[in-house]
Order: sequence, then structure tokens, then C-alpha cells
Amino acid sequence: MPSDFQSWVAARQSHFEGVLRGLLPNPEATPQRLHAAMRYSVLDGGKRVRPLLAFAAGELAGADVVRVSIVAAAVEMIHAYSLVHDDMPCMDNDVLRRGKPTCHVQYDEATALLVGDTLQALAFQLLAEHRLNDDAARQLEMIKLLAVASGSRGMAGGQAIDLASVGKSLTLPELEFMHIHKTGALIRAAVLLGAQCGSVSAPQLAQLDHFGKLIGLAFQVVDDVLDCEEDTATLGKTAGKDANNDKPTYVSLLGINDARDMARRLRREALETLAEFGDSAQRLRELADFIVLRKF
Amino acid sequence: MPSDFQSWVAARQSHFEGVLRGLLPNPEATPQRLHAAMRYSVLDGGKRVRPLLAFAAGELAGADVVRVSIVAAAVEMIHAYSLVHDDMPCMDNDVLRRGKPTCHVQYDEATALLVGDTLQALAFQLLAEHRLNDDAARQLEMIKLLAVASGSRGMAGGQAIDLASVGKSLTLPELEFMHIHKTGALIRAAVLLGAQCGSVSAPQLAQLDHFGKLIGLAFQVVDDVLDCEEDTATLGKTAGKDANNDKPTYVSLLGINDARDMARRLRREALETLAEFGDSAQRLRELADFIVLRKF
Repeated sequence: MPSDFQSWVAARQSHFEGVLRGLLPNPEATPQRLHAAMRYSVLDGGKRVRPLLAFAAGELAGADVVRVSIVAAAVEMIHAYSLVHDDMPCMDNDVLRRGKPTCHVQYDEATALLVGDTLQALAFQLLAEHRLNDDAARQLEMIKLLAVASGSRGMAGGQAIDLASVGKSLTLPELEFMHIHKTGALIRAAVLLGAQCGSVSAPQLAQLDHFGKLIGLAFQVVDDVLDCEEDTATLGKTAGKDANNDKPTYVSLLGINDARDMARRLRREALETLAEFGDSAQRLRELADFIVLRKF
Repeated sequence: MPSDFQSWVAARQSHFEGVLRGLLPNPEATPQRLHAAMRYSVLDGGKRVRPLLAFAAGELAGADVVRVSIVAAAVEMIHAYSLVHDDMPCMDNDVLRRGKPTCHVQYDEATALLVGDTLQALAFQLLAEHRLNDDAARQLEMIKLLAVASGSRGMAGGQAIDLASVGKSLTLPELEFMHIHKTGALIRAAVLLGAQCGSVSAPQLAQLDHFGKLIGLAFQVVDDVLDCEEDTATLGKTAGKDANNDKPTYVSLLGINDARDMARRLRREALETLAEFGDSAQRLRELADFIVLRKF
């Protein structure tokens, strides 16, 4: 990837880590163990794809980086809570995440449950207590957007569909429906919320929504390909897990070559949705590549 | 209790049940099983103490009942999610709630986890998508209030302190600290949010906050007394559970007579905080009695 983009990513990731550290509860405040577990589950982890999308969309919309940092943190806290809950024994029962023991292994199940619950509450607290848009009514719409994206008709709903699909053969549209909710909803929210910290027209927002949908889907297809290809050490989580759990994936449905082709096609379509934005969408274009061509 | 108050309670409870039915996701929308489990966990249950407090505080502040209904529903969804998660095997491992099998027994653990997660998201969605105050900036403050009240320094934090206290002997101040968070925070939020749908001054809001704190504590003391006194059939949940779990309670710390005295004292103090409101606080006064003298 271009070295200029590489430095942009590194700078944003490093800035964002500081933002998260400042926004998470102090580990010395009661209840200490819960606060420590919240920090354990959010900090030093992941590539921060959703926050990077929010920052890139914010740049496109000329948004204040302080405001975008808040929405990026809220989205990342929702994402982190979903990982903590998904890893629990009653869900995916996973012991390794981002190369570290999962929250319920490092702490205990009850704490992991509360970590997820409190990270979700913190996400909404952040969106309500910081100024994100000069128009407070617009800010209320942004909060609604994240709530819908993470709720029963968004991310968590996709998780429920995923659970119901174990051991079943899904069609490609059914698999797509699941992922548009499970992974896609939050990725779209990251793009839209980043942009809404600045100024974008309704048609532009619709274009960005379409971009988010395509790139969210591409992200999942690439995940399935990587999950099939790579070993546990490289991935930082248990590899081949979905196939072992008898969960349908793009690879199991299409085969690995067609799945790769699908990811490339989605990337192409995603880039087309950005055509009218010109140079202001450069970071979003580079992120589309970063997501599809991930090798880092 | 006065028959006029009794009809007020019955009318509000019945109105509120209809509100909840309308706000919860359609059980025929995908994911159906999750939506059915959400409805199972919220509908037909409980005395709706928090919503009643919101309605009473709303009347005091001359608020629109449609607006108060939304904040009451949001608070009740947070309360319901906390019960679903608290009942799970990794927490209290309870099988009976409000006379029905708990969510994870009726459905399964993974569904119960997602029910709690999605009820929380729905609570914030409701507060963001409905108009609750003519001033959108004030509405953002209301969302922050519920987020803080339910998060790691509110209800869920109290739950974490509760978990850490099992098998330990707490002092009275420590027990009070736990309950002010675990039960009190959401009860205070119900009172404050109901009032903030109408017009109240900052000093009045501070008085109401004090009322909510006292009545929240009274509620917990009475709960401990009832838990010790009554049998499972009357209570609709497993009786004597906290004592069996070796959890400190007001009864175990004070003895049953002093615990009863404490509840009476808290009620008296709560009523004093309402003195300046005159007739407009009549329902809140009656609710204080309803909470402390519960026999229904």
C-alpha cells in the first residue's frame, strides 16, 4: 500500500489509541475489576477498521477530528462489546482474540457479560455527552443510527440469524442478509457517523451508505477467505473456526476462488460509488483496498 | 392504598403495556426468535415501578404523557435487559422470574444474551428517535443520564460490586454504595427523565434526585425484607435466594426489625423532599408508600 496511506493509518491508529485510553473509565475507580476488564477488551487490539473508516469519511466531509474521534470510539466500543459477548461459552466459546485470552478467560464469564453491557452503555453516553454536530437534532439522528445499527435489526440481529444458521445450508442471498446485519451494519454506521460530523448532502450520504454496505460485505468475504487460508498464529484467533462449527461461509458456498473474485468485485463496485467525490474520497478508496487486499 | 391511587396505577399499567407492545419489534420480523424472546422478557411482567415513577414525576412537571411513555419504556427496557442478564447461569443462575421461566430457560443462553443486548440498544433508540423535549440539547442530556445510570458507574457497576461481594461481609455504607448503583441509579433515572419531559427548575430536579435516591434505597431494603419473609409462590421468584447465595442483605446486616425501621425512615425522608411541591407531587407520595408498604 502507498507509504503516504501507511503513515496516515499509523498516525490515526496511534491517535485513536490515546482517545480510547482517555474515554474508558479509570481503572482505579470502583468497580475496579470491571473497569480493568473493559480496558483489557478495548485497548491494544485490532486494526481499528471501523474507526479508520469514520476518520476517512470525516475527512471527506471536512469534519472536526475531535468530533470524529468520539463517534469512532463509540462505534469501536459497540464492536468490542460484540466480540466479548460473541466469544462467551454460550455463543462461539472462543478462548483467543487478537492474540490474547478472551475476556471471559482472562477474567470470568460474569465480568465478560458486564463488560459488554457497560461498553454498550458507554458508547451511547459518548454520543450524547460530546458535541458532534452544531445541530443537536442532527446529533439525535446520529444516536438513533448507531442504536439501530447495533440492535435487533442490525448487528445483534445478524448474530441471532448466524446462531440460527449453524448446521443449516444457506443460500447466497440468505448468507448475504446475515452478514449485511452482523458485520455490515456497524461498518456502514462508522462511515455515516464519520461523515455526519461534517457536512454532506443527503444524496452524498446515500452514496456513502452504499459504499459502506459494499465494503462491509467485502470485509466479511475476505474474512471467510482468510479464515480458511491462514493459520492461527497469523490470524490471532482460532483459524478454521467457522468451518469447524459447521457455519456457512462464502468459501463453503462459493469455493475459495469464487469467494476471492466476489471480494474483488465488491471492491470495484465500492470504488465506483465514490467516483463523484474526487480527491476528498482518497482515504476511503485506500481503505477499501486495505480491507480487501489485507496483508499486514 | 387509596382507591383513587389504585385506579391511577391500574390505568397507567394498562396504558403502558400497550405502549411496550407497540414499541417492541414485531415478532414476525426477522430474526423472529430473538424478537419473540425480547417480547417475552418485557411484556406481562412486573409492577412497572420505574415507569410509574416516571409517570408520576411527569405529572408533577406537567409533561406530555406521550413523551413520558417513551422515557418510561426506555427505562423499563434497561431494567428488563438487566434482569435477563442477571438471571443467566454465569450470574445468579435463576430459573424463575415474575412467575415465568427465565429467558435463558424458555429460550436458550445465547438468545438471552442477545435479548439483553438488543433491549439496551432499543432503549437508546427510543430516546433518540422520539421527541422528548422541545429542546434537542436537553434531550441529549436525558440520553446521557440514562447511559450513565445504566453503565459501569450506575446499574451494571452495582452489579459488578454485588458479584464481588458474594461471601464477603460488607459494612452498611458498602452495602448502601452497592444498592445506590445496582437498583437506585435506574430508579433515580426514571424519576428524573419523567420530570425532564416537562418543565422543572434545576433546584427542583435536585430535590427529585434526592427523592429518587431515598426511594431507590427503600425499595431495596423492602426487597430484602420480602425476600426473607415471603415464600416463592407469593414473590414469583425464588425466595431466600440472596441469603442462600451468601450475599449480604439489609436483613442479614441489621436484622429484620431494624431493616423494616430503616425502610420506614427512608420513606419519611423521601416524603420530606417532596414537601415544596404541594399537590403536584401527590402521585409520587403515594408511590413512595406503594413501594415501602407493598402488599399486592
